[in-house]
Amino acid sequence: MPDTTTPSATPSATLDLAIDLMGRASVTPADVGCQALMIERLERLGFHIERLPFGDVENFWAVRGHQGPVLAFAGHTDVVPSGPESQWDHPPFAPFIDDDGMLLGRGAADMKGSLAAMITAVERFVTAHPDHDGKIAFLITSDEEGPAVDGTKAVVEHLRETHQRLDYCIVGEPSSTERVGDVIKNGRRGSLGAVLRVKGVQGHVAYPHMARNPIHEAAPALDALAREHWDTGNDFFPATSFQISNIRSGTGATNVIPGELEVVFNFRYSTELTHEELRRRTEAILDAHGLDYHLDWTLNGEPFLTAEGQLVEAAVAGVEGVTGERPTLSTAGGTSDGRFIATLGSQVVELGPRNDTIHKVNERVRAADLDTLSEIYEAILTRLFAHLD
Amino acid sequence: MPDTTTPSATPSATLDLAIDLMGRASVTPADVGCQALMIERLERLGFHIERLPFGDVENFWAVRGHQGPVLAFAGHTDVVPSGPESQWDHPPFAPFIDDDGMLLGRGAADMKGSLAAMITAVERFVTAHPDHDGKIAFLITSDEEGPAVDGTKAVVEHLRETHQRLDYCIVGEPSSTERVGDVIKNGRRGSLGAVLRVKGVQGHVAYPHMARNPIHEAAPALDALAREHWDTGNDFFPATSFQISNIRSGTGATNVIPGELEVVFNFRYSTELTHEELRRRTEAILDAHGLDYHLDWTLNGEPFLTAEGQLVEAAVAGVEGVTGERPTLSTAGGTSDGRFIATLGSQVVELGPRNDTIHKVNERVRAADLDTLSEIYEAILTRLFAHLD
Repeated sequence: MPDTTTPSATPSATLDLAIDLMGRASVTPADVGCQALMIERLERLGFHIERLPFGDVENFWAVRGHQGPVLAFAGHTDVVPSGPESQWDHPPFAPFIDDDGMLLGRGAADMKGSLAAMITAVERFVTAHPDHDGKIAFLITSDEEGPAVDGTKAVVEHLRETHQRLDYCIVGEPSSTERVGDVIKNGRRGSLGAVLRVKGVQGHVAYPHMARNPIHEAAPALDALAREHWDTGNDFFPATSFQISNIRSGTGATNVIPGELEVVFNFRYSTELTHEELRRRTEAILDAHGLDYHLDWTLNGEPFLTAEGQLVEAAVAGVEGVTGERPTLSTAGGTSDGRFIATLGSQVVELGPRNDTIHKVNERVRAADLDTLSEIYEAILTRLFAHLD
Repeated sequence: MPDTTTPSATPSATLDLAIDLMGRASVTPADVGCQALMIERLERLGFHIERLPFGDVENFWAVRGHQGPVLAFAGHTDVVPSGPESQWDHPPFAPFIDDDGMLLGRGAADMKGSLAAMITAVERFVTAHPDHDGKIAFLITSDEEGPAVDGTKAVVEHLRETHQRLDYCIVGEPSSTERVGDVIKNGRRGSLGAVLRVKGVQGHVAYPHMARNPIHEAAPALDALAREHWDTGNDFFPATSFQISNIRSGTGATNVIPGELEVVFNFRYSTELTHEELRRRTEAILDAHGLDYHLDWTLNGEPFLTAEGQLVEAAVAGVEGVTGERPTLSTAGGTSDGRFIATLGSQVVELGPRNDTIHKVNERVRAADLDTLSEIYEAILTRLFAHLD
């Protein structure tokens, strides 16, 4: 256990729990006892625990309360690999608080700090409001950073099949950019991927009339796809974006016209469009260029949006009450497990610490920010479930 | 030694020598005694031999005659690898004449059959015209199919430095398509290659405004290069052709915008253009598209053309006299050692057997075609060097 009593860091229940969780090398899909630690604390508060392992992934669903709307805290105990340990200032799974009050270690920001803040927030809230309105829940997985098939997605299916409510969901993803709480994510763009294979006819560069170069034939179509104005976005989403991530063709020989071109591309799309529309318009562009092609589509996630409602109002007011600053609502960035939860019709926001060091060496978070985050979570609970006490 | 007495094949001096040469597995740069066999026959005719080894490549230059223009037969004793022997109907280096009168084996068409035809043509011509006009020469290498640095190119440099004439050159490359002698190559296009690297800025597909996708930026430029009308060719050359042979970009991950695109392309160009012009125009197109790029150029060979003159006239008339059909002049196809010889200011033609099986398994040539080819070579010698006897 590292020294947590350096002058600039004030020990706190949230920090203690974060350090306990970060000491466990729970690289996806490993959990290494993180969930047991959380379950122990929640059972002590009277939560009913439902363990939901799927495949090699550990998940649980915990509920406390008698009736009314359900507010779930959602998160993951797994972390991405540390990369070369030698590049870290301190071992990635031996959390350390430095002289500047920064908590260092894998998972500090994504998202064991958030898990600790959720637990301590609920502990304080339940102690103050043992007969709170509504139901408080936890939806925790050990596979958010990996395939994400046997994790939140499977738990959500279970909730759907067992007709369990999930009205409000706070995902602990690190949403903040400059100061903790400055950004709340109230939606995410959809993600639609594809592998495009354009067929040509292989031949010798000296006899181009006997070949058909798929690179030449595809170039104007790729240009058209890259230039296409898919939509203008809306108040909540930037314009839909098309990006080619990989392109490959050629035998390696410099005198052979290749027979096939492979292009991998991805859409990040707004709620102005559906994946069906994107597919149709993509194929229309390829058809207009007379290509002989095959497309393999992968829908990674449909877009979701919690434009307004009690959860967004409570989250914005909760942050403002704690930090004194009004947060910005944003739908920017990559996908998260929120995409699965939103399919239940739930209001979903993501609210967590600063995300500038996630997935990097020396991942870190300001230790004091975890206490602030715990206060914010508590303030949201209070706004939603304490008003009838 | 295979059975060469099948009913459909008439034994001949040319066939015998071709079989002797083909029995030697002279894969580039190996010669395996092929040149010694040729030299022995040429010395017997009174040729002066100059052995010109460079690096691991064997070459020789042989001359017979006292004065006047020099006609050289040029060729190579090396062959491309056989590929898997099991795919051949007969072992590739055990030449065999089948019931249809086809001579099978590696080098039958490219170009040991031509070498044999050259030797026997010269033998008959010198016997009939011991005091022929002009000088007859041989320029033979064992590296035409390989790097082609220490072969004909080096011999040509030697000829230049020692101020030796080379007025007419018949390269024995398999030029014929349907019937032996139907096509004479009287030039070749130039070949200019390049590796283009387009720089972008790597990033996450979810944050395209923070990246610059080199595939997107290059697509319209590649389209413009592929559509560009470089020239219309001329009476002897088809239009200059641009072909992309390889393209590659991407990290493999589907959510990363790559930082660089690599494109390999090649020009086959006519005598209407120079490689300097092609470079300048390519760079102008890339510049017009605002790309951040780097180009590495490789000049594989400048174009050459023997539009008319005594050699072309003699070759056309020689073929027509032997086969009764007027050959077509062509500059189509890949490069050959003719590109090096032409730099001496020589008239150069390529004239050899059918090329439909070269570099393939079961390479073969009609046995009788080698006798026809030998007669054609003799007829050309007669037209050029026998008229003053």
